[in-house]
Amino acid sequence: MPSTQPLPSEPPASRPGRLAVIGLGPGSAELMAPAVREELNHAQDIVGYTTYVDLAGPFRPDQRLLDSDNRQELERARLAFELAAQGRHVVVISSGDPGVFAMAAAVFEALEQSEDPAWHAVELAILPGISAAQAAAARAGAPLGHDFCVISLSDNLKPWSIIEHRLRQAAQADLVIALYNPRSKARPDQFVQALAVLREIRAPETPVVLGRDIGRPDESLTVTTLTEIRPEQVDMRTVVIVGSSLTRRLARPDGDEWVYTPRWYGRD
Amino acid sequence: MPSTQPLPSEPPASRPGRLAVIGLGPGSAELMAPAVREELNHAQDIVGYTTYVDLAGPFRPDQRLLDSDNRQELERARLAFELAAQGRHVVVISSGDPGVFAMAAAVFEALEQSEDPAWHAVELAILPGISAAQAAAARAGAPLGHDFCVISLSDNLKPWSIIEHRLRQAAQADLVIALYNPRSKARPDQFVQALAVLREIRAPETPVVLGRDIGRPDESLTVTTLTEIRPEQVDMRTVVIVGSSLTRRLARPDGDEWVYTPRWYGRD
Repeated sequence: MPSTQPLPSEPPASRPGRLAVIGLGPGSAELMAPAVREELNHAQDIVGYTTYVDLAGPFRPDQRLLDSDNRQELERARLAFELAAQGRHVVVISSGDPGVFAMAAAVFEALEQSEDPAWHAVELAILPGISAAQAAAARAGAPLGHDFCVISLSDNLKPWSIIEHRLRQAAQADLVIALYNPRSKARPDQFVQALAVLREIRAPETPVVLGRDIGRPDESLTVTTLTEIRPEQVDMRTVVIVGSSLTRRLARPDGDEWVYTPRWYGRD
Repeated sequence: MPSTQPLPSEPPASRPGRLAVIGLGPGSAELMAPAVREELNHAQDIVGYTTYVDLAGPFRPDQRLLDSDNRQELERARLAFELAAQGRHVVVISSGDPGVFAMAAAVFEALEQSEDPAWHAVELAILPGISAAQAAAARAGAPLGHDFCVISLSDNLKPWSIIEHRLRQAAQADLVIALYNPRSKARPDQFVQALAVLREIRAPETPVVLGRDIGRPDESLTVTTLTEIRPEQVDMRTVVIVGSSLTRRLARPDGDEWVYTPRWYGRD
């Protein structure tokens, strides 16, 4: 029957797939962007840390779940490119915002390290989400209402000296400071060192907000001060927000307190 | 007919209303949290700057729209408390995240300045949104993938000397820097001064992302460098993201470029 040769199978690069790195937001469906929900609905392969894949579900039987250990970020990114280069529609899941200490940077690292044209031909998209710091700030009031910075205390990928230098400069600049990955079992003492740096520069009564798993069923919010905070109150699932010299506490009707940083500075 | 005296009207404090400060996100409905959509659906009074009220709509005929000029933030916050103290369900609209240079801080300022117990009895909630910096970062790649800060260049409410000090410290700390309100017609030269500070410390080829109205129909994204950027490219609707020493550019298949900041620092 065939008078013509069959066409060779199309090379992967000519039918690139899609790789979307999405942010679930803090964890509850009501804070996840509709664009992210839509992307998850259309995905064929879902790649992510098990906890986040569970938060993002349920998925249909035709969707493949490729969940893995949280530390293998670069491997997970490479797996996602391999699948997308085969023409699959792949979603890589981050909690919070994928662009803030999450999978988006790892995906670009994997891409830059690859010389495979099929990887570079993949349709790549980053879909933002509400970050853990924003969710904690909203529950607490408006501590990020003025100039602020966001710093990870994890020294897995950067030397502690850099972290300490940044904390000192940020404190001297009187920025509100949101700390990610503040304290792990493997390095319980670095949070103590970080507090020591901040206490040298910021006043003892500086308000501090501890937001743990905000947006999830077991969320907890604590308002304390730079003097009163105890390291045991903090773990890897806590975002710590240290106020500036102007951050204020304000009584709530229920006996708790709001924390906010006013828009003005100095004058007014 | 009336054998009994009419009851005095209930005091406002005994039936407090609700005041929710919500974030629309960057502007498109697909990036607005479902919780925000729900809050808008239930609101009786919608208070906000005209442009944002338009973005948040359409509204039903029974919903009152109280839109106003953008500069009257404190007055708008007070109006919202007056209505909520009367038992109304009020929504105050911000674009982006209400907790980032937006209405949440103004609402707390208004509350703290008030001694009216009815205001303090209002059920107050802050509903976060995806900020302009996050939306711009996602379109550009992952420039905020490592430690970063967010600084407003507006000197309406803080002295320029503070802004310059913060820029210098942030640059010395090698933080990625996201600049809000970078350049207005009233102060076209301060952005030039800010660039001068950053150019003293950061390398000429430092990647810079300009995101204007990202998430809206006329969005534009520009990738440039600290040397090549021209002030005329920037206005009040632009978020400017200045990379750290490690922020990288990476070719896209369409000829444009991604910008990302890797997770590692120094070693690796």
